[in-house]
Amino acid sequence: MLQATASVIIALLMGIVGVGFVLWQTRRVLSYDQGNAAMRKIAAAIQEGASAFLSREYRVIAIFVAIVATIISLFLQWQTALCFVVGAIASASAGYLGMYVAVRANVRTAAAASHGLHEGLRVAFGSGAIMGMAVVSFSLIGMTVLYLIFNGNPAQLTYITGFGFGASSIALFARVGGGIYTKAADVGADLVGKVEKGIPEDDPRNPAVIADNVGDNVGDVAGMGADLFESYSGSIIAAATLGAALGTDSAAAFIGLPFLVAAVGVISSLFGIYMVIGEEQNVTLASTYEDMSVTGRIAHFFRKQVAKINENASLEDLLTALRRSVWGASVVVLGLTLIVVLASGVSFNYWLVIVVGLIAGNAIAYATEYFTSYTEKPTQAIANATQTGAATTIIQGLAVGMMSTVLPVLIVAVAILLSIWLGFKADGTIAAGLYAVAVAGVGMLSTLGVTLATDAYGPVADNAGGIAEMSHLPGEVRHRTDALDSLGNTTAATGKGFAIGSAILTALALLAAYVTAAKIDNLNILGPTMLPGILIGAMMPYLFSALTMMAVGKAAHEIVLEVRRQFNVIPGLMEGTGEPDYKTCIAISTESALREMILPGSLAVVVPLVVGFVLGKEALAGLLVGTMSSGFLLAVMMANAGGAWDNAKKWIETGQYGGKGSEAHKAAVVGDTVGDPFKDTSGPSLNILIKLMTIVSLVFATSFGSGWLSF
Amino acid sequence: MLQATASVIIALLMGIVGVGFVLWQTRRVLSYDQGNAAMRKIAAAIQEGASAFLSREYRVIAIFVAIVATIISLFLQWQTALCFVVGAIASASAGYLGMYVAVRANVRTAAAASHGLHEGLRVAFGSGAIMGMAVVSFSLIGMTVLYLIFNGNPAQLTYITGFGFGASSIALFARVGGGIYTKAADVGADLVGKVEKGIPEDDPRNPAVIADNVGDNVGDVAGMGADLFESYSGSIIAAATLGAALGTDSAAAFIGLPFLVAAVGVISSLFGIYMVIGEEQNVTLASTYEDMSVTGRIAHFFRKQVAKINENASLEDLLTALRRSVWGASVVVLGLTLIVVLASGVSFNYWLVIVVGLIAGNAIAYATEYFTSYTEKPTQAIANATQTGAATTIIQGLAVGMMSTVLPVLIVAVAILLSIWLGFKADGTIAAGLYAVAVAGVGMLSTLGVTLATDAYGPVADNAGGIAEMSHLPGEVRHRTDALDSLGNTTAATGKGFAIGSAILTALALLAAYVTAAKIDNLNILGPTMLPGILIGAMMPYLFSALTMMAVGKAAHEIVLEVRRQFNVIPGLMEGTGEPDYKTCIAISTESALREMILPGSLAVVVPLVVGFVLGKEALAGLLVGTMSSGFLLAVMMANAGGAWDNAKKWIETGQYGGKGSEAHKAAVVGDTVGDPFKDTSGPSLNILIKLMTIVSLVFATSFGSGWLSF
Repeated sequence: MLQATASVIIALLMGIVGVGFVLWQTRRVLSYDQGNAAMRKIAAAIQEGASAFLSREYRVIAIFVAIVATIISLFLQWQTALCFVVGAIASASAGYLGMYVAVRANVRTAAAASHGLHEGLRVAFGSGAIMGMAVVSFSLIGMTVLYLIFNGNPAQLTYITGFGFGASSIALFARVGGGIYTKAADVGADLVGKVEKGIPEDDPRNPAVIADNVGDNVGDVAGMGADLFESYSGSIIAAATLGAALGTDSAAAFIGLPFLVAAVGVISSLFGIYMVIGEEQNVTLASTYEDMSVTGRIAHFFRKQVAKINENASLEDLLTALRRSVWGASVVVLGLTLIVVLASGVSFNYWLVIVVGLIAGNAIAYATEYFTSYTEKPTQAIANATQTGAATTIIQGLAVGMMSTVLPVLIVAVAILLSIWLGFKADGTIAAGLYAVAVAGVGMLSTLGVTLATDAYGPVADNAGGIAEMSHLPGEVRHRTDALDSLGNTTAATGKGFAIGSAILTALALLAAYVTAAKIDNLNILGPTMLPGILIGAMMPYLFSALTMMAVGKAAHEIVLEVRRQFNVIPGLMEGTGEPDYKTCIAISTESALREMILPGSLAVVVPLVVGFVLGKEALAGLLVGTMSSGFLLAVMMANAGGAWDNAKKWIETGQYGGKGSEAHKAAVVGDTVGDPFKDTSGPSLNILIKLMTIVSLVFATSFGSGWLSF
Repeated sequence: MLQATASVIIALLMGIVGVGFVLWQTRRVLSYDQGNAAMRKIAAAIQEGASAFLSREYRVIAIFVAIVATIISLFLQWQTALCFVVGAIASASAGYLGMYVAVRANVRTAAAASHGLHEGLRVAFGSGAIMGMAVVSFSLIGMTVLYLIFNGNPAQLTYITGFGFGASSIALFARVGGGIYTKAADVGADLVGKVEKGIPEDDPRNPAVIADNVGDNVGDVAGMGADLFESYSGSIIAAATLGAALGTDSAAAFIGLPFLVAAVGVISSLFGIYMVIGEEQNVTLASTYEDMSVTGRIAHFFRKQVAKINENASLEDLLTALRRSVWGASVVVLGLTLIVVLASGVSFNYWLVIVVGLIAGNAIAYATEYFTSYTEKPTQAIANATQTGAATTIIQGLAVGMMSTVLPVLIVAVAILLSIWLGFKADGTIAAGLYAVAVAGVGMLSTLGVTLATDAYGPVADNAGGIAEMSHLPGEVRHRTDALDSLGNTTAATGKGFAIGSAILTALALLAAYVTAAKIDNLNILGPTMLPGILIGAMMPYLFSALTMMAVGKAAHEIVLEVRRQFNVIPGLMEGTGEPDYKTCIAISTESALREMILPGSLAVVVPLVVGFVLGKEALAGLLVGTMSSGFLLAVMMANAGGAWDNAKKWIETGQYGGKGSEAHKAAVVGDTVGDPFKDTSGPSLNILIKLMTIVSLVFATSFGSGWLSF
């Protein structure tokens, strides 16, 4: 197992490199100019709101973690409980840091945008990069240190599943609670502000405006980060577990491979990030290229890779800059993993599997972009449907959402099929094939440092726009922050596609690990308890979505009442002379989000345990398959329908079908409002449901028997 | 096998009894008064429209059937092709007869409603009963005659799967084509009539009004009938096939059981129907009860069972009358099947299985009623959400639809689990358990004659209301037809729940038959091609729904253009002096419905074949499981959300939240319009998708190998 240990140590070292970058980059972002006093004041309110939310959320999480850790210690082992706590702390720390920086980078982005578009992009993306690299490196360090602590213990990988469970628990709070928070604040602010009072979006008189701005960060920085932290950790844990279970001579190499892939992913992600945030340099050659030394030529090559964004860059140009960074990282990963695979002695097929994973991840992102971008037919068809009213807008949006599931499903299905086949051809067993699926997941997520940066950048740009608006910065600055915000909307949509795609591969790998751990040898799909398990599993995402959608409605209603109350009792609020009470709105969003997530959250943990104990471990496998397949479809449908409605509205706002204020625009607003909980609450929460149910099953795998019915 | 043959002959005889009732009842319905000249004129237009649609549809079907029959003859056996043709003809004949009577009973119902509420109910329900009993008896006669023709041939049951495929093909046209037709006409008529021209619903000046009335029958008589014809035949075929494959000494009893259950179901359904349409009699006793002869007492008992509906009957009273008839039939089935089970020598457990099936069917219907009735909380919550606009109406409706999946899934899951367990306990194998699932399906559908009558009654009452409106009958008559129509709306919603529940049990039984026929022995859920199969399968309902929803949009758009054209070019149309051209609208609905169903319809047939040949027979089993579970959820969600929106609107129209014309009502109309394709096109079409994919797989089961990838 020496090789495995060596691989783990390499991964640990790369994790430390990642942390080094995170610290350096944090200092760099915080050193940027914070703009004028008005900007600082608004930013301070957002920071305070974010910190209020986080401290309240983390207090609840601490209680939850303590209870679950106790249960795990009692029913399983203390080591698993320890790993659980470490996983929770690692994910929470990454989320905290990401949020801390994001709510400080927003105002700095607004200030930097005064100097130019690229300056703004560099600050916002640099903040996203901190989140991305923190997720990757905290996860790697956490898992590798635990691995080394328990090194030599045959159950070491079993313990580490606890780390995944801990990460999942944080993801539950961050994604589900955060999803409810962000949309409750958004919808609540809009319903009174825009609809009743007729004041514009991001107007400082609206008492819910700060909660809304905090919500953007809560959802897309902390929520998305925790979601992918879970996928990232889960895919590595699953791959290592399945690799160890292969029991062949090369088990050590199989265990080590996912860690090595993740390790080279850190380097690759840093390169990708550099391509966006590296300082622009005039590449005037000191000597002609032919005369340069080798190091000079390499330096020249790197300097050439930094994106050059001029003032008139279109959305397409900006997108290209971000895409180049992801592609650049992918190319580096492909090169380095080829070396890793050859050096570690596993079959060349596993490199092909990594290629499959990387391509699948990017392909899903592009399929998502096609269905949600307003330059493409599907979203334009929704915009067209607004002409005949809200009903046809909704029908067309739902149809587009449903249609948009086809490509991601085919991509994932082909990726699974190819991975299993390549693994099978390499080592002759289906188990090797399932290991390959897990490796494909690790491959897909290897460049997470940079892909997550492109997501977590979004809310920073969005906030920067809000701050520019509220502090009345000049039009050209607002124009630049708008461009950065549009870019963020597009990357948010593709990020959601990537998140659900990776969640499915991770969940499948965890399912395979569960089946191995639970020692299930007969998983006949027509087994006595399997189909009931599958049906109940397929129902879970519907129940979960119903609950989260209703939760947004209830929480938004409370915000509406509070905002109305403030407009009634605070003198001069409407005239801009009274001070709105932002904190109460933040407190209401926080409390209602945490309260409303209890029921759906508990279901995700309790249902697998109940099914496992009552119907048996086979039924539980069925449950997971049902949830995975039905949840995948529903999540993609909701995320893409929501994104497409949002962009259909944006397209109309560019002047199509009568533009803002027209009947078509009103219908589009209905679509956009329906899409809000779809794309920012219920849809993304399903990723968590799928993974959390699977990891709970894996952690408790050895506790389940054959159920109460005797067959 | 003598016992099996005897059972089949009994079923044949009961089928003949059913046909006898159908003929007698048809004469009876046609003998009722047709009302005044205005009513006859409108009715004639509807009859002509229905006949135009059917003849056009049946011409297309004839071509389709000829092609598929040729393919079956070439690749499989001529006997299967023959059974396919017979199945198609049997289902089409039942649909034709049901439609023929329905479009004649509507005007007679309106006329009878002039005399009283019960008179109207008797005519409308009597028409529904013809559809119900025609479905049951045509199916039974078709299958039993084919069974007897091929008696002694070891492949006889394999051939008869062709009958199910034939029935499925008709269901595809009737449900999918019919679903597109009915909503295209409905939405098209409303968009120009109500919205643009401001004329009321069912106004004879609207050129699409007759197409709309024809559509009601096309969807809920022919469509629902063909759907349940397919479930009814499929469940019996699957049970017989699985029974034969058990290979025990009692195989003959196992094959015979489903036929016998169906046979006693005919008697029971007739009793249930009698409870509604039997002539009311004053039960004045000729002698005291104690003095009566045994036959006198029996006659007295039967007379007492006839529903008594007085003039002031509430919706609840009318519902109770229909419920009593279904319950009455269920009680009789329970008694008679107990005798059947005891007499045929199979385990008593199979009687319990029949009980499970019957209870499950009724339980799903009530769960559906709870979620879609405006006297209950879920629909009232939607009505409440209309106060904050269309967006919250849609969100709440979708959440209610999603929430409404929980109970049906749990009911079906428990029914499957109990059936498998009872079968396993009776005969010691999981195969016996799967046979028991099929028997539960047969049990659930045994009272189909009367349950379908309660569905197929709806459009007759709806049409009667339209005719009363268009021919300006007195207010009290219109009041009665409205009451009958409301009753029809409720039974339509519960009927949809029953249809999808039975589709799932049937599909599961057919899937088990497929696995047996394809000789699959390793169906590991983590097998190499299984998960890709499941994912693609889970995607199919989304693709299918997207296509059917878009089809309604396109077809409705064509109607809108035609109606606008007519208002522009026909002089005096708006003033009521010009004659609208109903026929062109009917022709457009017909053509577009048949055209738009080609793509989704072909997918349902082609995808299973492609997956079976390319990925192999195991992947195909996965595909079917994926489609079944995901389709079940989506179908229930769409049907119930649609029903709940519809009734939320109706509730507001009773005066809640400002009543008709209020802002809340406008939001409710948006919900109702979104719900239209949900509940009448896409949702119900998924039943067909699920069953058709399964039966195609079963028919071609022996042709599939292990796929192109080698494992």
